[in-house]
Amino acid sequence: MTTPATTERRLEQALLKGHWNLFERLPAERLLAEKLGVSRATLRTALRTLVGRGILETRRGSGTFVKALPCRSDNASLADSLRAFRIVMPHLLMTAQPSFAPSAIFTLERQLSAAGMALHADDMRLFAQYHLQFFSALLQGLSNTRLAQAGAATLPDAHALARLLQDCPPIRLEEIFKHLARTLHGLRHADPQASSAALSAYAACLLQGMGEEA
Amino acid sequence: MTTPATTERRLEQALLKGHWNLFERLPAERLLAEKLGVSRATLRTALRTLVGRGILETRRGSGTFVKALPCRSDNASLADSLRAFRIVMPHLLMTAQPSFAPSAIFTLERQLSAAGMALHADDMRLFAQYHLQFFSALLQGLSNTRLAQAGAATLPDAHALARLLQDCPPIRLEEIFKHLARTLHGLRHADPQASSAALSAYAACLLQGMGEEA
Repeated sequence: MTTPATTERRLEQALLKGHWNLFERLPAERLLAEKLGVSRATLRTALRTLVGRGILETRRGSGTFVKALPCRSDNASLADSLRAFRIVMPHLLMTAQPSFAPSAIFTLERQLSAAGMALHADDMRLFAQYHLQFFSALLQGLSNTRLAQAGAATLPDAHALARLLQDCPPIRLEEIFKHLARTLHGLRHADPQASSAALSAYAACLLQGMGEEA
Repeated sequence: MTTPATTERRLEQALLKGHWNLFERLPAERLLAEKLGVSRATLRTALRTLVGRGILETRRGSGTFVKALPCRSDNASLADSLRAFRIVMPHLLMTAQPSFAPSAIFTLERQLSAAGMALHADDMRLFAQYHLQFFSALLQGLSNTRLAQAGAATLPDAHALARLLQDCPPIRLEEIFKHLARTLHGLRHADPQASSAALSAYAACLLQGMGEEA
């Protein structure tokens, strides 16, 4: 049985192979479904997902077009996202000068203390989730949506991050937590340089935990 | 009639209002469809799009979860994306050290010359499209998928870019083209600093064209 997810991957492969060019129109749904040997419902679900991912675009009455080429996401590993995080996130904090209302700082504080509790309860799944909530809240402080999306593209996958944290010795976990606390401290004192350095150290520390040179 | 797109926007609004938290499970499809007053098919299409956008996540047998908070994309204007482009893209070229095979350089060259032809034919829709193809090809030279996605999040919308270009006087259009040519020249001579400066000047020039301080 061919699922929408499989169909999505096949379409993605076809796009990567240059089957259709950027801005080209895809064949009619009926023809495409036939060609792929799937039902139109399955094809439509797959197309919708690709529209959501910003790869395809539907124009009313004129069909489905290629809007952007997909990235090869198969090998988007945790190390890749941590390296990307380390390049992009500190730079965003430095140059975009996010401004945080006291209520936003309060949200970040709550997430940090929840992360602290998860750490001491040794619940790495929760600990990882609070990291990501912290970063999401941080990105929402950027007034520019496109910048926030650029930062969000580098956030690690929650499950992969939790697995990595599970393998870290307690001393490294404490260090990781300290970097998050320093990030917040910098934001609280309007010191983007300190926050930026702390975020970079956070990613470096995780990369070291993976045995990667940081 | 409530379309999937409307339903998607309503779900997005609910998420932005904190109706569900990050990592929380959404209500069962049947209940949610009832609550929104839409058919299950419409709801499912909307959910799929949000899954594609990385905002929701479906786990087999356990339901749909909030994976990331949506960005307020309504006001993602051209100026926002050009400012984001200017912050992120030059930085990526400088730090990620993309390496381009001769064939990739050849692709970029072809796109640049096609852009030149579109410019001289005064076809701004095509001229804009070749800019975006040029940047997409450039991002594919990054070995890190997450970084490429971060850069892609800052690319301007093709239609909005074409409209802006239509309003630019010929002398500014020539200048914009020159910055693209300099970007390629820097890549060809493994001079990321020159490419990076040219990309920054490209965005600044467009922002000036919008009457924004660059």
